[in-house]
Amino acid sequence: MSLLVTGSIGIDTVTTPYGVSENCLGGSSIYFSMAASFFTPVRLLGVIGSDCPFDLAEVFAGRDVDLTGLEVREQSKTFRWKGTYGDNMDQRQTDCLELNVLAEAPPTVPPEYGDSKFVFLANTAPALQLKLLGQIEKPVFVAADTMDCWIKGPPDDLKVLLKRIDALIINEDEARLLSNQSNLLRAADVILDMGPGVVIVKKGESGSLMCEKGGEKFLLPAFRAAEVKDPTGAGDSFAGALMGYLAQNEKTDFDLLKTALAYGTVVASFAIADFSLKGLASITRDDIESRFEILRKLTNF
Amino acid sequence: MSLLVTGSIGIDTVTTPYGVSENCLGGSSIYFSMAASFFTPVRLLGVIGSDCPFDLAEVFAGRDVDLTGLEVREQSKTFRWKGTYGDNMDQRQTDCLELNVLAEAPPTVPPEYGDSKFVFLANTAPALQLKLLGQIEKPVFVAADTMDCWIKGPPDDLKVLLKRIDALIINEDEARLLSNQSNLLRAADVILDMGPGVVIVKKGESGSLMCEKGGEKFLLPAFRAAEVKDPTGAGDSFAGALMGYLAQNEKTDFDLLKTALAYGTVVASFAIADFSLKGLASITRDDIESRFEILRKLTNF
Repeated sequence: MSLLVTGSIGIDTVTTPYGVSENCLGGSSIYFSMAASFFTPVRLLGVIGSDCPFDLAEVFAGRDVDLTGLEVREQSKTFRWKGTYGDNMDQRQTDCLELNVLAEAPPTVPPEYGDSKFVFLANTAPALQLKLLGQIEKPVFVAADTMDCWIKGPPDDLKVLLKRIDALIINEDEARLLSNQSNLLRAADVILDMGPGVVIVKKGESGSLMCEKGGEKFLLPAFRAAEVKDPTGAGDSFAGALMGYLAQNEKTDFDLLKTALAYGTVVASFAIADFSLKGLASITRDDIESRFEILRKLTNF
Repeated sequence: MSLLVTGSIGIDTVTTPYGVSENCLGGSSIYFSMAASFFTPVRLLGVIGSDCPFDLAEVFAGRDVDLTGLEVREQSKTFRWKGTYGDNMDQRQTDCLELNVLAEAPPTVPPEYGDSKFVFLANTAPALQLKLLGQIEKPVFVAADTMDCWIKGPPDDLKVLLKRIDALIINEDEARLLSNQSNLLRAADVILDMGPGVVIVKKGESGSLMCEKGGEKFLLPAFRAAEVKDPTGAGDSFAGALMGYLAQNEKTDFDLLKTALAYGTVVASFAIADFSLKGLASITRDDIESRFEILRKLTNF
């Protein structure tokens, strides 16, 4: 079933203890699309400036990623991010942020995308997420990400958004901030009361937690790959594989959500094994299936 | 199959945010025996002074706990511990420690215990653990606990012990200290090279990790009970249920170890739900089975 992602496309410069990756392709919608494309066709909605050195058609060659919704603005500059990860890779510092085209009007959803059934709204202003969602006719399952600045900001837009989405995918600090609860299970309950039917809390090295309105819960440890070279895009790769698997199966019951979350964990573990998109670009669906079976053996009893 | 535990028996005074439990029964062998007795007969080896106000026969009434190895020293005083847990229950502070009888000669293994097949050596000086183990004729599976002071101390005894046990059950800080590795998977590998066939690392709220010499690994999240009133004895209850389940099944292959670890997690979650032994004393094997199924649903996909 059709899967639409809307999010950033950026030029990243990333420094980790393993080295520096200068002016590489990044952005939430890029990682998401790459990860989701292992499972289902993806429709990408995003905007870049004329300075963007990457040919996205080439980046996604051989993958079913529809770029009809890619807008190139001649007078604008592409979003840029420069960041550094500390030794334990859990702390990251933004060295430089140039919103550029992201500070302008958002892209318009092309008519061809209007019938999208699965939708992922990557992190941006909730008002913008709502505006984009409003252009989709009859979505079946909508997931969104958000971050601390939108939670701390005027909460009205976020409140409205939470009532219109099916799943919120956030990290543990954001879950605590949004719910005002330190215990993550209680935090999830509070967030479920705000609207979404499912909340997925990413806990980094501690894995993830998923709670459903009906009371179902699921805990999954992170997959510890031997080496983490660049954590950038881990969350978006996780969301991409998760949503990709759901869209592929056209279902969203809790058992399928559990499996989808496991695929998200597996694909994220590949994404962080190398800089930029290299970790995802170098694998096949078979590699994902093999690691999925390892994760199952590692966690099931 | 016969399961022997040797460890402390103490009089505890515990303060947590939920209240104070004064002069209650505690000690590693007590929690271990209570937990293990849900699965298999237990042989307890320990020593108390004449001041001990508890009738252990009464404490274990209706449970198959053999007290032949309980020594009461008329001229001695029982081990006492006073501790306080902070708000998050992860940090604990020892307010007062009186080794008393634990500073004297260890108890002697009675002849009836000599044929024990499963053995748990709770935390104490490695030299003492070795001495006790030396009195068991042909153990099938020996597990031990240790702590930072023995790891930091003269390492020779611990080195010898590690070569004579099948499983080491320790917490994550101890695993890092013992291996000099910050990554827990690497820490486990280093510890496996020191001798034991299996290492089980308890990570508190993050669950546990088990690694086997053959390369098999298992990750299990902690079971988050609604309330944690008193974490004392969590580790020993965990070890008790784990060893009890292995002894009950008379096997120690990795699949059975995985299930045993899940039972350990479940029983520990009951132990910490109330002060002292109340959490364990008030449940049945059926309660354990129900929560075991919940844990399976919560973690398997």
